[in-house]
Amino acid sequence: MRLAAPPAAPVPLAELAGRPLTTWRYAEALGVPAEPWRAATLGEGITPLLPAVDGISVKVEYASPTLSFKDRGVVLLLAQALASGASRVIADSSGNAGTAVAAYAARVGLPAEIFVPESTSPKKIGQVRAHGARVNLVPGNREATAAAAIEAVQAGGAFYASHVYNPVFHLGTATYAYEVWEQLGGRLPETLVLPVGNGTLVLGVTRAVAGLLAAGRITKRPRIVAVQAANCAPLAAAWRAGAAEPVAVNATPTIAEGIAIAEPARGAEILAAVDEIVTVTEEQVLAGRSELAQNGWYVEDTAAVCWAAARAASWPDAVVPLSGAGLKTAWTPA
Amino acid sequence: MRLAAPPAAPVPLAELAGRPLTTWRYAEALGVPAEPWRAATLGEGITPLLPAVDGISVKVEYASPTLSFKDRGVVLLLAQALASGASRVIADSSGNAGTAVAAYAARVGLPAEIFVPESTSPKKIGQVRAHGARVNLVPGNREATAAAAIEAVQAGGAFYASHVYNPVFHLGTATYAYEVWEQLGGRLPETLVLPVGNGTLVLGVTRAVAGLLAAGRITKRPRIVAVQAANCAPLAAAWRAGAAEPVAVNATPTIAEGIAIAEPARGAEILAAVDEIVTVTEEQVLAGRSELAQNGWYVEDTAAVCWAAARAASWPDAVVPLSGAGLKTAWTPA
Repeated sequence: MRLAAPPAAPVPLAELAGRPLTTWRYAEALGVPAEPWRAATLGEGITPLLPAVDGISVKVEYASPTLSFKDRGVVLLLAQALASGASRVIADSSGNAGTAVAAYAARVGLPAEIFVPESTSPKKIGQVRAHGARVNLVPGNREATAAAAIEAVQAGGAFYASHVYNPVFHLGTATYAYEVWEQLGGRLPETLVLPVGNGTLVLGVTRAVAGLLAAGRITKRPRIVAVQAANCAPLAAAWRAGAAEPVAVNATPTIAEGIAIAEPARGAEILAAVDEIVTVTEEQVLAGRSELAQNGWYVEDTAAVCWAAARAASWPDAVVPLSGAGLKTAWTPA
Repeated sequence: MRLAAPPAAPVPLAELAGRPLTTWRYAEALGVPAEPWRAATLGEGITPLLPAVDGISVKVEYASPTLSFKDRGVVLLLAQALASGASRVIADSSGNAGTAVAAYAARVGLPAEIFVPESTSPKKIGQVRAHGARVNLVPGNREATAAAAIEAVQAGGAFYASHVYNPVFHLGTATYAYEVWEQLGGRLPETLVLPVGNGTLVLGVTRAVAGLLAAGRITKRPRIVAVQAANCAPLAAAWRAGAAEPVAVNATPTIAEGIAIAEPARGAEILAAVDEIVTVTEEQVLAGRSELAQNGWYVEDTAAVCWAAARAASWPDAVVPLSGAGLKTAWTPA
């Protein structure tokens, strides 16, 4: 599953300045040829980076075509599907990734089939269907949904647009770090705080950091801190125990549904990539979401976990992503 | 109410290239000093402009901090409130403008009071309250809500953050046109299609076009076409009749709620500013919203009116805004 190629990097800052404001300004690092696949875009990326409070800056990732950072990876999944000559795509997701695959498949004109747990809200299902995708409701848990999708892929004929298993997704989420680097004038902050469930953002960003270092675009590695919800924290438990693999946990429900992954498929890779894994309680997430709204940013619950962690830790120079828009979930004030 | 100053314009294209990716890259044209007021931002502006189908390009305005183009104007309202030493702000809106004022007031730390019609959905009220704003529910129609807000402003002590009456709002929405001009490499399209209710976008864009022409940044004026919902079209009726003032109409409900303004306060100014006003039916709006989703963009009903008009007209080179995100309203498929 790992990419064999050495870590990539964008061109130097001075060469970037005149490029169009799209994902493809980092074409050298995306793993999919820009031509002709740059048309597979809905306008993802180039999100704002702004100082908020007490040394914390936010990157407004929800200001994105499908209102979450998943667009950064999904655009490359669909570009790769086109490049590989696929005639349709399959994905599994209970949330933002499924919406994004449906939207980008619509953009490039490929039929999409999205597998979701039977418990998925009708509103989310409606949005996926609005994009013209076929929705398959799967009984059981998230793992059963993934298994059903994989079975359909194995039957042949479809490209598996997986945000978990397809490494090109991480070349897309790597652009998060390239943008921070570019927006800060050629540096990264001391601390990058990232949510972690399946590691879709963490694995992209750690790869980006490696590439920036290898190319000499930065000289110092930032500290990469991953955040889990305390109610579902197999990676945090492993990190505390010094284990190389995720620890089996008795997960309980969490409002941070976007990172509620009890058995992360790429857990060992995530544990090897980050410097620290911390947890936040449900109360901290709710308080974080409220505090973000009181500073002007209306985010979904999952999008408040990094903010909550940063407020608890008081890192002097940290960037946190606001990963999804508030309208994606119900508002349950703290 | 008109600004006395001559039309402003951004600096030439070559000078813009190295500037930060925020609203303030057009500082020379914003009417509020960039320093220290550039901190009054949540990351609005610099939205994607992408070719869609048949000569129509879309500008993804909902990829914005409060998920609508209103952020472009509201950021300047709050900057001006700060610059004028205000200690609190008042606004009236049943929708996106009220949400945006609440969010930006939270960002800059000014208490906000938002007047909304009593019929406003609890979900929208909840979002405004999440930003820490006080909500005043006003019985009666939209005009009664405006009257209540104005009465409160007249009682003194508060800055009126009005997207209808405060001309600085239009200096903000003018950035829509500056961005199109910059993203097209220093030109505007043949046709700019814009939604019109109170004219918050039209009045900014027509001003921007005048400024770009006066400064020699463009040599040819684009055709500016405004779009109303046929169910509530006082400006389209006036345009057809060759009248200089809005015509009294028997408005009926429309799903394009964001432009359902039966008595536009600045109607004469709008009629003088545009080249043509067309209407779209409810069916066209629904079909437009579906077609946009089938191309990857999930928008609210109001945000589909310009797309619907452009599909009906077949202009060879038109830009339409996708003004608000789909999650803002219920989805009622065509």
